[in-house]
Amino acid sequence: MFDLAPVRAAVKPTTIICSRRLDEYLSAIGLAVPVVLASETFQETGSFKFRAAYAAAFHSPHRQLLTASSGNFGQALALAARLLGKDCTVVMPDNSARVKVEAVRGFGATVDLIDTGAISRKARVEALAAKLHDVDVLSAYDCARVIAGNSTLGEELAALIDRHKFDCVIAPMGGGGLTAGIIQGLRRMGSQIEVFAAEPLLANDGARSITAGTIIANSEEPATIADGARTLSLGKNNFAILKDGLAAVIEVDDAMIEEAVRLLYGLANLKAEPTGALALGALLVARERFHERRPLLVVSGGNVDSAVYARIINAN
Amino acid sequence: MFDLAPVRAAVKPTTIICSRRLDEYLSAIGLAVPVVLASETFQETGSFKFRAAYAAAFHSPHRQLLTASSGNFGQALALAARLLGKDCTVVMPDNSARVKVEAVRGFGATVDLIDTGAISRKARVEALAAKLHDVDVLSAYDCARVIAGNSTLGEELAALIDRHKFDCVIAPMGGGGLTAGIIQGLRRMGSQIEVFAAEPLLANDGARSITAGTIIANSEEPATIADGARTLSLGKNNFAILKDGLAAVIEVDDAMIEEAVRLLYGLANLKAEPTGALALGALLVARERFHERRPLLVVSGGNVDSAVYARIINAN
Repeated sequence: MFDLAPVRAAVKPTTIICSRRLDEYLSAIGLAVPVVLASETFQETGSFKFRAAYAAAFHSPHRQLLTASSGNFGQALALAARLLGKDCTVVMPDNSARVKVEAVRGFGATVDLIDTGAISRKARVEALAAKLHDVDVLSAYDCARVIAGNSTLGEELAALIDRHKFDCVIAPMGGGGLTAGIIQGLRRMGSQIEVFAAEPLLANDGARSITAGTIIANSEEPATIADGARTLSLGKNNFAILKDGLAAVIEVDDAMIEEAVRLLYGLANLKAEPTGALALGALLVARERFHERRPLLVVSGGNVDSAVYARIINAN
Repeated sequence: MFDLAPVRAAVKPTTIICSRRLDEYLSAIGLAVPVVLASETFQETGSFKFRAAYAAAFHSPHRQLLTASSGNFGQALALAARLLGKDCTVVMPDNSARVKVEAVRGFGATVDLIDTGAISRKARVEALAAKLHDVDVLSAYDCARVIAGNSTLGEELAALIDRHKFDCVIAPMGGGGLTAGIIQGLRRMGSQIEVFAAEPLLANDGARSITAGTIIANSEEPATIADGARTLSLGKNNFAILKDGLAAVIEVDDAMIEEAVRLLYGLANLKAEPTGALALGALLVARERFHERRPLLVVSGGNVDSAVYARIINAN
């Protein structure tokens, strides 16, 4: 397996946040409290993706790194590449959040903007890979190194269970790299705690795949507000872990995702991106299932364009 | 002096946040990095005021607590009163941030809304005090118990200096309770580190008072966006500490306060209220003074109405 010591040393520990005001709100609607938040919004580059990116870059035998990413993985890989002295190119849709494009460039990577209506990311990556020398094409989620990197979060959560008394974990799911990594890390540390995936209803290929027992893909990129979960399907490496490892997948409609962003803003002073609020959204959607549970909610990231965020917090 | 052990046990430790993206920005304009943030936005009730309120309520011999507060102190006192089994009334201007009014009520306190054009807060507090039995009228800042409560933050910062290598502290100043408390706590722990106060230019009575060597009051409540610093003057208890204890006062115009809120949003994923962003604003305003220093910036709180916050982050 991969040596994770360099990854553990490079990442920041997740930030544990409890909010009495959020707990009062959740308690009033019948949920058990306290609810614990594990926030990756203060992680390097503002999301858990740095864990994955650093592991993938560190264990790459190649000098150039190439990926397609709508933002967080690209930004994380750009920083990892800089820290490890490698070159990095990130293919991004030309409608990506501006703040994410700028951040990738800020860490010294080359940004390759494409019109996804004209060329698929996959096709563009293949074209670039054919041109570049000594290049490693990295998936943001379907990769054993990515899962191993994310498993460092699972390790951290396992070490926190006794102190914070949570009895299940809810984490966002897009391609499945985060949930698979959390499960891998928890089990490595000997924890059998249940892990639930929170997936956008508009991008519920994961729920359908788990039910079917085989990977089912969306026919096109789902238009959910949770842009970190706009994946076509679960990764194969991830599905192998998730199909038996997940307790369940909870589907969250976009309105509830936005409500969760607002609650984190108003009651916990926590800036979360829509994808990052998925776990709280799942708790709200499935409150009957969780009404006697003590969940830990993984807030996967905080990078969200100000125009989108302003609209969400100002609604209602 | 006051027994602070109960206060230390009731408060949450401050949250230390370092942001590589913020450091890249600050470095590019000539400042030394890393810059360390000590964030009280995840403190009980979302601001440092809980430290003050819990100390004041714990050491009050009275069963009823009464205060005038535009929000954060009222909310903090309401929670402290609930935790200590006391009654609490908070006089608030009827144009206070809605989220703050609701939060005070949510913690079980009575909110007394007044039209500050028709009656001053002081007059209303005096009228209520005459009616209530066994009542303690509390100042949000000019009170030895308040300073002592805030000194717990100074103690925490002293303990962090070696690990985080900062060589000065910048903290917001309104009535002076926070800065006086930080100085008191630092000196108690044996630290002689310099402390700078960040004050809104529109409410610069503190800077004028320090220069004059005597307390100078604003003629009316200043209209700065930093609503936590809309005080008429420094408190007497605070001035006694601040007049020799502060290294300097840095005046920050409202435009720079808003820019600091945006930078914390965009580069550190940190939701700060305008008053909470004052220290970063001071660093930007006085960058020549600080260009070779390693400051710790105190982010005093995060409670800000969504309409105000949305406007600020969406400007530019």
